[in-house]
Amino acid sequence: MDKYYFSAMASRMRRSEIRELLKLTRQPGTISFGGGLPDPNIFPRKAVEEAAVRAIREQGNLALQYSPTEGEPFMKDEAAAFMTRLGDEISADEMIIVSSSQQALDLLSKVFIDPGDAVIIERPSYVGALQSFRAFGAEFHGVKMDSDGIIPSALEEKILELKKADKKARFIYLIPDFQNPSGINLSLERRKEVIEIASKHNILIIEDSPYRELRFEGKLLPSVRSLDKEARVIQMKTFSKIFVPGFRIGWLSAPPEVLDKLVMSKQSTDLCTSAFVSMMSGYLLKDGHIEKQIKISKEVYVKKCRTMLDALEEYMPKLEGLSWSKPEGGMFLWVSLPGYMDTLEMIPDAVEAKVAYVIGSAFYTDGTGKNTMRLNYSYPSHEQIKEGIKRLAGIVEKREKAKSSVKG
Amino acid sequence: MDKYYFSAMASRMRRSEIRELLKLTRQPGTISFGGGLPDPNIFPRKAVEEAAVRAIREQGNLALQYSPTEGEPFMKDEAAAFMTRLGDEISADEMIIVSSSQQALDLLSKVFIDPGDAVIIERPSYVGALQSFRAFGAEFHGVKMDSDGIIPSALEEKILELKKADKKARFIYLIPDFQNPSGINLSLERRKEVIEIASKHNILIIEDSPYRELRFEGKLLPSVRSLDKEARVIQMKTFSKIFVPGFRIGWLSAPPEVLDKLVMSKQSTDLCTSAFVSMMSGYLLKDGHIEKQIKISKEVYVKKCRTMLDALEEYMPKLEGLSWSKPEGGMFLWVSLPGYMDTLEMIPDAVEAKVAYVIGSAFYTDGTGKNTMRLNYSYPSHEQIKEGIKRLAGIVEKREKAKSSVKG
Repeated sequence: MDKYYFSAMASRMRRSEIRELLKLTRQPGTISFGGGLPDPNIFPRKAVEEAAVRAIREQGNLALQYSPTEGEPFMKDEAAAFMTRLGDEISADEMIIVSSSQQALDLLSKVFIDPGDAVIIERPSYVGALQSFRAFGAEFHGVKMDSDGIIPSALEEKILELKKADKKARFIYLIPDFQNPSGINLSLERRKEVIEIASKHNILIIEDSPYRELRFEGKLLPSVRSLDKEARVIQMKTFSKIFVPGFRIGWLSAPPEVLDKLVMSKQSTDLCTSAFVSMMSGYLLKDGHIEKQIKISKEVYVKKCRTMLDALEEYMPKLEGLSWSKPEGGMFLWVSLPGYMDTLEMIPDAVEAKVAYVIGSAFYTDGTGKNTMRLNYSYPSHEQIKEGIKRLAGIVEKREKAKSSVKG
Repeated sequence: MDKYYFSAMASRMRRSEIRELLKLTRQPGTISFGGGLPDPNIFPRKAVEEAAVRAIREQGNLALQYSPTEGEPFMKDEAAAFMTRLGDEISADEMIIVSSSQQALDLLSKVFIDPGDAVIIERPSYVGALQSFRAFGAEFHGVKMDSDGIIPSALEEKILELKKADKKARFIYLIPDFQNPSGINLSLERRKEVIEIASKHNILIIEDSPYRELRFEGKLLPSVRSLDKEARVIQMKTFSKIFVPGFRIGWLSAPPEVLDKLVMSKQSTDLCTSAFVSMMSGYLLKDGHIEKQIKISKEVYVKKCRTMLDALEEYMPKLEGLSWSKPEGGMFLWVSLPGYMDTLEMIPDAVEAKVAYVIGSAFYTDGTGKNTMRLNYSYPSHEQIKEGIKRLAGIVEKREKAKSSVKG
């Protein structure tokens, strides 16, 4: 009996390759560089507990009730103040509270994407965004990056190419700071150029910015939103990387006309984000706990990053075409292997050696990136990082030897 | 400059009429029978605080981290045990944790509805479900109810009518217990008949059941899910009415093939529901706090319902065609006014008299129900209920007089 008639959207949905591959490596003893998980050892338990108790005792009537779809006003005010302290001036009316970035992506997809619509993405780009845009039927147009981020001339070329085909991208999706997966920063000059190009061709920009504040050294780059003068930038922020992922909370800022559609969309999506978690978040923002947590995270992650870089230097074979990024922040390191290696084909070896990574091709929509992988250094311990990189190096060496023996 | 190109979905979205009308009546001094809000005076603050502290202290590593998309296993186990205690046997594998019922509706819409697809609904039906199905382009086919719920012969007629037009409904959406907005219960006999008809024509049933446990007297009716033997029923449950709305948590049970699609859909919708709130919910379910809260809610709401019924009896003019439901549970009372009255046209009077209700037509998709309104009795106090009904009665009387004077 064929009882189930699924929608076209259901047929477009795919299980995340990351999640499926990570399942393979979830045996005990496996060292995971796979997920994008913060280090649970630094979770601010005491601050969270105090905020929970306060939300219930001082604001119980509101905290346990439905909240406005736009978001709990107290949290919105505190989030706006936080952004403004970080140099990204904003008012509470310009934002809507969302259940973390993935919901922001869902709402934006709902509001902007019809099946077949073109969207411009960085190449590679965040797999969760690709999943959401794909479910709504987006047609992907990737633009190359170099070490300064998306290449403006390539971006404009892509826009003109679309124009020739009588198409126009609904938006340009950017992760300008410590891009996921590449770790690359979009340079200040490029930020301005991208805005100029978007303005010239009248295209919206979505700025997804979960890692910006996790900069190990130096000053934060101005957000793309803060550089824009035409209400062209929609900005996504989340607690997941700078505080804890377990809250599922963040915010989205957009021009009024877009915000109005997003609020309507959120209404039918989940009515509202938890008032309880919002109230707690309001207290935590107000009392500076997010900034404290950012400071702690940076201190811990810069050391783990160093450990991973040192281990790569020590254990990886010296091969032509083997290189890795030197992160200035964020949670990820991006590894390029020699062109003949395929990180998907290496998965059985990784399962055997008990080490997990994310295949780079998951971040591409055009089947490329087969010789790349993303490594997370925020979650594993220093010992695990060393041992895991040793294991990975063994796999790479084995591949190199297999190739040499075929040659010989 | 026309910067914004919105999707077809965005053009189908509407702001909730309820919310827009309620804004009009949010002046100080207004008595609201509008929302579906629980009484905040009975919120279980102490239990929530204890659960929050426990989740952080005993399960901090998991509670503050990402959770699996399917839901935090501890909560799933406790939710399954809770359902089983209530006579609705279920195992944790059959469910997915969701961010309350509205998210369940969004995920179901994503998985089942393509633009133009037929869905069968009760007439009237829950406005939030209509909003979600509408956003995805559903074509509504309403089936009449009487005091025993949806009428099976009318349901089958509708199915055959669709068949003639070479259409098939994607599902039948039912709220069998204390239906929102009508307050009607689907009788046991009818539950069986509806399942039989659905089976004969091979259509899925969605059972939305937020109020079932709020039965003032007598035994709970068996859920539609528990009566089904063919894995034909998808069931939605939420904490919002039986515990607190501020958690934004609930669960959805479905046949494995459907559950798989729902999980994929949730992955791109919000990755996962808050592990922190899920862990708290696990403790609260385990320690019997949901059952305690249900007991308290019933005790409080049955009295408020009595007060509203008494006030209607006392203050409402005796008019032909003026009647109201006698709820056996839930949070709402449904009022039918004489056919010539229009509750939307009465809104300016209500704003002036400072009393709020929801216009009945919001629950219909065919423009009918103009002479009906939904009244909530769980949120206002006894004094407010008496005074509010007095004000409402004044408005009805005024309309009646206006009509008589036109006649005369």
